[in-house]
Amino acid sequence: MSGLYLEDFHVGRQFATEPVSLSEDEIVAFAEKYDPQPIHVDKTAAAASIYGGLIASGFQTVAVGAGQWLRTGLQEGTGMGGPGLRDIRWLAPVRPGDELHTIVEIAEARPSRSKPDRGLVHFTYTMRNEAGIVATFTAIIMVRRRPDAA
Amino acid sequence: MSGLYLEDFHVGRQFATEPVSLSEDEIVAFAEKYDPQPIHVDKTAAAASIYGGLIASGFQTVAVGAGQWLRTGLQEGTGMGGPGLRDIRWLAPVRPGDELHTIVEIAEARPSRSKPDRGLVHFTYTMRNEAGIVATFTAIIMVRRRPDAA
Repeated sequence: MSGLYLEDFHVGRQFATEPVSLSEDEIVAFAEKYDPQPIHVDKTAAAASIYGGLIASGFQTVAVGAGQWLRTGLQEGTGMGGPGLRDIRWLAPVRPGDELHTIVEIAEARPSRSKPDRGLVHFTYTMRNEAGIVATFTAIIMVRRRPDAA
Repeated sequence: MSGLYLEDFHVGRQFATEPVSLSEDEIVAFAEKYDPQPIHVDKTAAAASIYGGLIASGFQTVAVGAGQWLRTGLQEGTGMGGPGLRDIRWLAPVRPGDELHTIVEIAEARPSRSKPDRGLVHFTYTMRNEAGIVATFTAIIMVRRRPDAA
C-alpha cells in the first residue's frame, strides 16, 4: 500500500501526471467499439468536417485522464472506488499524436459521516494539449483515512 | 441523414437501445489501457475484493451506453457533438456477461439562442443489468433543427 490517505489530500493540492498520446489507430479502435461517429472513425469524413481531421471520442479522452491519475500510484491501496463523475466538459478536439498533460487538483476532501475509515475526495482533472485545455471533469472518490487518524 | 431533429425530442420521450454485453476479455483489455485497478484487470485480486470478481471500469460502462444510443441511428446527420456530460453515477457493478439495457430519455430540449439551425438537448441515460440500475448520466448534445423550422 503506497497510496496517499485522505489526510494527504489538502484542498488546492495539485498533482502532475505523465503525458499520454493517442495514435490514429487507438482513436479509431476505441470509437469503432464505443463511439462510432464519422469524426472519430472515418478519416475522409472527418477531413471534410468542421474538425478537418480525425478527433478522439470524448469518452476516450476522459478515460485517458483517469488512467494518467491511476498510474501515479497515489491511490494504490487507499482508493476505494467512487460513486461518480461530475461536469465533464469537452472544450477542444484531441487529435492523433497530441501530447495530453493532465493536472489533478483536490477540490474538496472530507471524512465520511457514517464510515470512520474513509472520506470523500473530489479530484478535478484539467487535461491540456499543446494548444490549451481540451477537457475538464471532477471525479468523486472514496479514500482511506490514515489508520491512526480515525 | 436519417436522424431525428430538435423538434422530435420532446421532454419525457424515451428511446430503448439494443442490449450489449461485455466479455471478461473486453473488460480487462479496456482497463489495462485506461483504468488499471485490480478489480478491473486482476481476476484473483478481484475475487478477493468486496466485489467477489472482475467488474467493468465505470468509464467503459458509460462508453457502452454512448455506443448503444449512437447505434440507434437517431442522431445520424442531426447530432452536432456536445459540450459535455453531467452527473455520472455508478450505482452497481457491471460484470462479464451482464446484459446491459439502456434507456435514453429527453430531460430538456431548447433552441439555441445564438444559432438558429440547432438546439441543445439533454439526454438522460439509465443503464440496467438483470439486477437493476448500474449507471445513470446526462449527455448534452447539439441537435439540428428541422430545416423548415428555423
